[in-house]
Amino acid sequence: MGKIYIVGIGPGDMANMTYRAAKAIEAADIVVGYGAYIELIRDYFPEKEFASSGMTREVQRCRLALEKARSGLKTALVSSGDSGIYGMAGIMLQVLNESGSQIPVEIIPGVTAASAAASLLGAPLMHDFAVISLSDLLTPWELICKRIRLALQGDFVLCLYNPRSKKRSGYIGIARDIAMEYRRPETPVGIVRNAGRKNEGCEIASLEGMLNFDIDMFSTVIIGNSATYVENGRMITPRGYVL
Amino acid sequence: MGKIYIVGIGPGDMANMTYRAAKAIEAADIVVGYGAYIELIRDYFPEKEFASSGMTREVQRCRLALEKARSGLKTALVSSGDSGIYGMAGIMLQVLNESGSQIPVEIIPGVTAASAAASLLGAPLMHDFAVISLSDLLTPWELICKRIRLALQGDFVLCLYNPRSKKRSGYIGIARDIAMEYRRPETPVGIVRNAGRKNEGCEIASLEGMLNFDIDMFSTVIIGNSATYVENGRMITPRGYVL
Ligand SMILES: C[S@@+](CC[C@H](N)C(=O)[O-])C[C@H]1O[C@@H](n2cnc3c(N)ncnc32)[C@H](O)[C@@H]1O
Ligand SMILES: C[S@@+](CC[C@H](N)C(=O)[O-])C[C@H]1O[C@@H](n2cnc3c(N)ncnc32)[C@H](O)[C@@H]1O
Repeated sequence: MGKIYIVGIGPGDMANMTYRAAKAIEAADIVVGYGAYIELIRDYFPEKEFASSGMTREVQRCRLALEKARSGLKTALVSSGDSGIYGMAGIMLQVLNESGSQIPVEIIPGVTAASAAASLLGAPLMHDFAVISLSDLLTPWELICKRIRLALQGDFVLCLYNPRSKKRSGYIGIARDIAMEYRRPETPVGIVRNAGRKNEGCEIASLEGMLNFDIDMFSTVIIGNSATYVENGRMITPRGYVL
Repeated sequence: MGKIYIVGIGPGDMANMTYRAAKAIEAADIVVGYGAYIELIRDYFPEKEFASSGMTREVQRCRLALEKARSGLKTALVSSGDSGIYGMAGIMLQVLNESGSQIPVEIIPGVTAASAAASLLGAPLMHDFAVISLSDLLTPWELICKRIRLALQGDFVLCLYNPRSKKRSGYIGIARDIAMEYRRPETPVGIVRNAGRKNEGCEIASLEGMLNFDIDMFSTVIIGNSATYVENGRMITPRGYVL
């Protein structure tokens, strides 16, 4: 019988993939995913059959995975990072529920962009943090702004996914302006592009100066809390240990 | 020369560890960590030398790792989950900065408890979420409560780490009472114990009924947002895709 593995492949390279994710891809008869993610892993699994689709075609991708599984294939549906954080797990389960299918599903977690980015910056996520996507494709921009404000009021570290796309180039600027109302201008901001991939980039800016850096759709932006500082080139949010 | 790897080993089993984490442990001359985490991995690395210490002795553990590295050893300092989320990365960098040592450090991320727990529950983290530790060892309880309230006001999914210890058995009850002010009593709540370990447990409760379940210091608790629902035994926070 067919089966669906919903696989988080981690930020991009094989090193940051889990054994379980690699094993599921090995075991699969076919691997379904967004083209750019397929490209990240294709070379590691040279024998594998892949089926890719465009970025905004998530629902179609899940239907394709279901179709393949129903035809008896072990099917791996891949997400970058963790499959359950703005990944494919939710939509796949929704498509499955809608279909009434009893195909078995296994969700395989992975290293999410927040963790990958933080590891390159130092230790910015040692205290409570809020993960917010700036994509308004599926969420009203007003709600996104409200969440940014509340997270700032709570002195959470902010971890911003999908900070910019062609259509939404100004949102990261608005987010930064809101943050300036609550945090010092010199608050450290980490910008990590393509963690674990070719063209990996990592910068530590100030809240005031962050817009001078290149922030794109492959970036994760981490805005420190009131205690975050930079020392020896590393961004640290202390948890309060007395040394 | 010595080196320190700060390694996130994932939730507990080898399957959910990354290649990079395993390779760093293999490469290390000595592995330093909290005793319970050492026990999780000892059998996978039978040849390895381990040095463990008690749970609340984080600073001492980091000093031990630094001492070993200074004596020329490749030293792996292990954290469960991700090393940068309530893990050892922050303290280790602080100890290093304090010492003025130039020992090279590599931070290796891992699958954090939130991702591991979510994968067992379904897809509860598909939308914006706040990660909050209920431990008041290093954070005033008032600030923790304030963060819970703000996250609820923002309709974030809540992801609670350290939900209960012997000394703080009542905190998860208070957190639940605050949540009842903002969310429907039937809001789904996922409780995952020992993800990826012996005695793994996973339950989906309602906000109203969650305290009838066993929540301990090895549990992660995920409180849904206003849109989270349960279908076919899985907890889903929809992101708004139209099927
Ligand atoms: C649709 S979300 C997918 C998140 C993914 N499921 C995860 O858990 O990392 C895409 C966003 O994740 C972030 N992201 C994903 N991979 C990244 C990487 N390798 N480096 C930096 N950010 C990344 C970026 O913010 C990007 O806009
Ligand atoms: C000090 S924090 C360490 C978190 C860890 N660095 C991570 O990223 O998962 C300890 C808390 O993490 C959560 N946790 C860690 N491992 C877990 C597991 N295997 N299953 C469920 N929760 C876990 C629990 O809430 C626990 O109280």
